[in-house]
Amino acid sequence: MKEFIQRRDKNGVAYLTLCRPSAYNSLSMALMQQLFETLDEIETDLSIRTVVIKGDGKGFCAGHDLKEMLDAGEESFYQLTFETCYKVMQKITSLPIPVIAQVHGVATAAGCQLVASCDLAYAADNARFGTPGVNIGLFCSTPMVALSRAVMPKHSMEMLLTGKLISAARAESMGLINAVVPENSLEQEVEAVASLVASKSRHTLAVGKRAFYQQKDQSLADAYIHCSQIMVSNMLSEDAQEGIDAFIAKRQPVWKHC
Amino acid sequence: MKEFIQRRDKNGVAYLTLCRPSAYNSLSMALMQQLFETLDEIETDLSIRTVVIKGDGKGFCAGHDLKEMLDAGEESFYQLTFETCYKVMQKITSLPIPVIAQVHGVATAAGCQLVASCDLAYAADNARFGTPGVNIGLFCSTPMVALSRAVMPKHSMEMLLTGKLISAARAESMGLINAVVPENSLEQEVEAVASLVASKSRHTLAVGKRAFYQQKDQSLADAYIHCSQIMVSNMLSEDAQEGIDAFIAKRQPVWKHC
Amino acid sequence: MKEFIQRRDKNGVAYLTLCRPSAYNSLSMALMQQLFETLDEIETDLSIRTVVIKGDGKGFCAGHDLKEMLDAGEESFYQLTFETCYKVMQKITSLPIPVIAQVHGVATAAGCQLVASCDLAYAADNARFGTPGVNIGLFCSTPMVALSRAVMPKHSMEMLLTGKLISAARAESMGLINAVVPENSLEQEVEAVASLVASKSRHTLAVGKRAFYQQKDQSLADAYIHCSQIMVSNMLSEDAQEGIDAFIAKRQPVWKHC
Repeated sequence: MKEFIQRRDKNGVAYLTLCRPSAYNSLSMALMQQLFETLDEIETDLSIRTVVIKGDGKGFCAGHDLKEMLDAGEESFYQLTFETCYKVMQKITSLPIPVIAQVHGVATAAGCQLVASCDLAYAADNARFGTPGVNIGLFCSTPMVALSRAVMPKHSMEMLLTGKLISAARAESMGLINAVVPENSLEQEVEAVASLVASKSRHTLAVGKRAFYQQKDQSLADAYIHCSQIMVSNMLSEDAQEGIDAFIAKRQPVWKHC
Repeated sequence: MKEFIQRRDKNGVAYLTLCRPSAYNSLSMALMQQLFETLDEIETDLSIRTVVIKGDGKGFCAGHDLKEMLDAGEESFYQLTFETCYKVMQKITSLPIPVIAQVHGVATAAGCQLVASCDLAYAADNARFGTPGVNIGLFCSTPMVALSRAVMPKHSMEMLLTGKLISAARAESMGLINAVVPENSLEQEVEAVASLVASKSRHTLAVGKRAFYQQKDQSLADAYIHCSQIMVSNMLSEDAQEGIDAFIAKRQPVWKHC
Repeated sequence: MKEFIQRRDKNGVAYLTLCRPSAYNSLSMALMQQLFETLDEIETDLSIRTVVIKGDGKGFCAGHDLKEMLDAGEESFYQLTFETCYKVMQKITSLPIPVIAQVHGVATAAGCQLVASCDLAYAADNARFGTPGVNIGLFCSTPMVALSRAVMPKHSMEMLLTGKLISAARAESMGLINAVVPENSLEQEVEAVASLVASKSRHTLAVGKRAFYQQKDQSLADAYIHCSQIMVSNMLSEDAQEGIDAFIAKRQPVWKHC
């Protein structure tokens, strides 16, 4: 059992809850390590095809645990903190399983980075997003890495330079999240999306998600050569054969790992 | 005469219609080859300054011809299909003439890729867009190359992972298309935009479109050095001299190729 | 005193006004040089923490001074013009101080490039944006460098290929500007944002802005390594220590340069 990460599996979806509600689920070293380990376990768990990350209590996640960092008060601890943090963020990206952020309340600093790092994100209408580090003299430079890849330059700059929180509606219009929903239907909305994604082939999702991040920074020509090879090998895979057969026979496909 | 591509020229615009309405204009090998050839002919046709691509029948284009691929049933045919496809898509990008997608009904998988690959896109309010390959175990990895360069990460991921179709209104808000118009005015709206673009200098459009795709992946400094040289040589061109003269004399310019 | 750039400082904000109202503040060689010099002076002026650029008279800026270029009529002058221009634009990006565009009336061609190059931009509801060079046979290739990095591909292409002006509302939805406000409240809105940004630590803003542009074109992994080091050294800086102390003590921070 992990103290700070609660995992509940349902219909191929692993629901992970950040559990430090008294500290707005801030990313203490222990929480980050447990999140990393949990994602690592899920990576090889063939029963899981989608991950949802949410927060316990009043909000999603308020970023790093400043108190813990100050108590340590050492450069080496700061280094370890940011290093552990980016390993978690990159774990989300490299995980062969889609990851969805379910956001209520605040998602600030590294909490906003977590939202930006997920493949999909849905938020309650009361959610607010921000990178307020600049207010305390500590620019949100690592959250910026994910944020500036998720939204447009003027929008990231606005959040980073003013430190102000933005509404869920604005986060949606910026492309930081996929949709805003009323707070009391957030849970079921996310479950619907997560279940839909989890109804796909684990193999196919893995192939596609990996290809997405690989081809993103390639030239157009290189990306096409790379992804065409992926399409061909995907086409020859067991699950595509089954999917196409099912489609033609107008029946539900039965994937290899279900 | 080409069986699957109808070409009609008007006022410097080449209107190309994908003609396999019984198969939702899906991209069979023959259709893709004919589209490539048509674009190749247009490339050196000095009377053309804009291209419009649209679909015959109920929709724009439903992607690859799965039936043809299954009938072939060979890896080498799959390879040839995706290779031919990306040659068409890159032909659109490298064509020294702007290409506009005119979308009604569905634009799915490689059909959505075609929309994403065009320089501009307009859609009827009944249009729907999607990359549903994941539903049959075959992730839309090659459509993703164009899609992920046309819209923001969370939006492409939503389409790719859920496989759901999105409305024209959402496609507009994502930036996948330039505008949604009522179905019965789509034709004339696109003709208006196409005619406007075709009223510009062929040389200038060619210079600018090439520069756009060249500078996109360069560093800011390299892009500026590159594009400044282009500006200088554009400034010295016959059509810029004419354009500036006409502007000062408050008359319509007469370009070299009209 | 500079003829074409008026500078007025207030509360850590340098308000720069482009002053060639009779020529729509077009970017003559003299104006560009004075703008560069002014930014250069501000770079080492420790009393300044935010820059606002606005235009005198009817509009923001109508691009290059075509008349001056035609009068010179020499390739070497054209070269010098575009080179001086991109040095100004890159000066804005490299300046360790956030730069905000305050736009009313037209912002066209290199004037639109100026808006796209600023870190933030706010516009009056009467503002209009465009890259109309294509209308006179001279594609806006250098404005495109900034524009295509500020908005999505279909949107830049629309502006570049049609040459049409877009409204402030559309510029906002494209992400070219942060917000549209009624014309008569533009001044105070921008002052509010500028004052907010100027209330932050000069050191922290410098660190963050530099990191933003450095990490943008790096791979995700490289960007994280780079920015984590920046976070650690930022954390150890005088201003972060003060900011965190003030935050804990629930008082206003007093930065090193105020």
